Amino acid sequence: MNYMLKDENAIYYECGYSCDNALYLSLGAEAFFITDSRYTIDAQQNVKGANVVIDGDLYGSAVKLLKKAKVKKVVFDPKEWSVAGFEKVTSQCKVTFKPELDFSHKKRIIKSDEELKILAKAVKLGAKAFKALAKEFSENGFGEDEYALTYTAKSILGGFGKYELSFDPIVAVNANAAKPHAMPTKTKLKKGDLLLVDAGLKYKRYCSDCTRTVEAGKGFKFDTKQKFKSKKIQKAYDTVLKAHDNAIAKARSGMKAKKVDALTRDIITKAGFGEYYVHSTGHGVGLDIHEMPYISTKSDTIIEDGMVYTIEPGIYIPDEFGIRIEDMVAMVDGKALVL
Amino acid sequence: MNYMLKDENAIYYECGYSCDNALYLSLGAEAFFITDSRYTIDAQQNVKGANVVIDGDLYGSAVKLLKKAKVKKVVFDPKEWSVAGFEKVTSQCKVTFKPELDFSHKKRIIKSDEELKILAKAVKLGAKAFKALAKEFSENGFGEDEYALTYTAKSILGGFGKYELSFDPIVAVNANAAKPHAMPTKTKLKKGDLLLVDAGLKYKRYCSDCTRTVEAGKGFKFDTKQKFKSKKIQKAYDTVLKAHDNAIAKARSGMKAKKVDALTRDIITKAGFGEYYVHSTGHGVGLDIHEMPYISTKSDTIIEDGMVYTIEPGIYIPDEFGIRIEDMVAMVDGKALVL
Repeated sequence: MNYMLKDENAIYYECGYSCDNALYLSLGAEAFFITDSRYTIDAQQNVKGANVVIDGDLYGSAVKLLKKAKVKKVVFDPKEWSVAGFEKVTSQCKVTFKPELDFSHKKRIIKSDEELKILAKAVKLGAKAFKALAKEFSENGFGEDEYALTYTAKSILGGFGKYELSFDPIVAVNANAAKPHAMPTKTKLKKGDLLLVDAGLKYKRYCSDCTRTVEAGKGFKFDTKQKFKSKKIQKAYDTVLKAHDNAIAKARSGMKAKKVDALTRDIITKAGFGEYYVHSTGHGVGLDIHEMPYISTKSDTIIEDGMVYTIEPGIYIPDEFGIRIEDMVAMVDGKALVL
Repeated sequence: MNYMLKDENAIYYECGYSCDNALYLSLGAEAFFITDSRYTIDAQQNVKGANVVIDGDLYGSAVKLLKKAKVKKVVFDPKEWSVAGFEKVTSQCKVTFKPELDFSHKKRIIKSDEELKILAKAVKLGAKAFKALAKEFSENGFGEDEYALTYTAKSILGGFGKYELSFDPIVAVNANAAKPHAMPTKTKLKKGDLLLVDAGLKYKRYCSDCTRTVEAGKGFKFDTKQKFKSKKIQKAYDTVLKAHDNAIAKARSGMKAKKVDALTRDIITKAGFGEYYVHSTGHGVGLDIHEMPYISTKSDTIIEDGMVYTIEPGIYIPDEFGIRIEDMVAMVDGKALVL
């Protein structure tokens, strides 16, 4: 099969290198990594299994290679290509370009042993950062607003410049945690507040992703065991934790993804919080922070060994509080192993 | 004219608000800002001059609005739209979609007085950060590698969480500065090294952009007046500074952009460094770090009052050193005013 890629991570997956201006062609037995002269040295040293082509005009270069290879059909993902870039290639070639949504994500849904090791290491580094963050917040976080707390989370998760982040961390206090994608506000953290942190870092380009919700007292930790003085919050927290643990214990290879979603959702619904669980159970994680499989009420994807995804149930009571507990699991020997 | 926008900054320019999942339609006298429910409150509070539509299916929502408005022609920028998103809208409408490259950038090429004020403030904050950075590097930077120096630059330019950055700063020592888009290495800064820093921050979403090249001694400053112990470096530096100053002094509204480019290039070429000046003189700056006008050897764009762009000549001697001096100018009363 012939295919062409434009997305940075999709290209990295093919040849072990990528940059912000690259185009990748796989044409029969040959593959081509096209980039501009800023990346000549890095590309030549790192690209594996593809010919490096240096040309400021990526699209023009692709057209030449497509014509030379005389291929008839080329697969592409319409999400990866801009209308302008796609037009530049396709208007000059008598080739059939076949759209296939999530083409690269589908290839990447089962992680190799090497990828699983890297992802496990990313998660381990993330967990270490959460420990350091709890210590820092406990010592210096009270009285700071969400902007400052978010900056601290970025610094610590990023290893003070050592790692890139999987995404901008979410650090939300009390009612702000009720928004699943909360943006920072001027709300200050006080002792006894509910604190939700959702954050991750990248190790060798692979993402970690973790959420903890705690009552922020002196010396608090980002453990999943938490005591809240509010009975209502405690009830919601215990429900989310039960849902989280249930999915991890009972997810199996061979199940449909929507069955895994039900493992969290049924518990939350039975406890009377169903309407406050406003998102899916989880998403795949790899080079991208959101990949396949999607663990949603509608997904018929069959869970298989080697898949890596999040289990992240939540309960969000508007204007009061939000709770989410998230871990990444890998399917190993038919079961979900927490990374 | 009817048009549809997908780019975050293009949308912000129209209505004073944007987010990472939005679509904007301008249809006759009415305009529509479409986003999902995560942004309901922010959009309703901040969008000006457009109806806020909350719908998780942005494209489906756009189709409904296009059908209802019964418009015949809609302009779009093919660089802004993915093939998948464009297809979702266009396959369901009997409308002529007219591609216009850089549609929003063309609208934004002349800055308003309000925008000029914001850009001037962004540059001022950037200059303040460069001062603080020189102090920090001078006190604690020697012995640190480019990764650590880059992290420090990010922290200081970002006001420790207060501002977003215009781009990832470039901090390059000696031979690494010879790459115009240098990535950090493990090279450590020593006293007397050549140090190039290219960095900027965002104020009210508008970008600053500045480059300085210095000999990093005790108490050094990021001024344009610099003394280098190497005669070769000094000669190159003086040439770049002369080119930079010449363009600022002689750029005029009414000139073609390529004439402005020649104001730096001719001086560098005459000094015998022409082959080492491997890029254009500058680029427009605004909501995006790279906008129109492009100050290149090929650009026939007529420079006008209200345009804002960089003057950033450079000389790059491979494996030896690189020099670049960059400032942002605004065209005011026919002349280039350094911001």
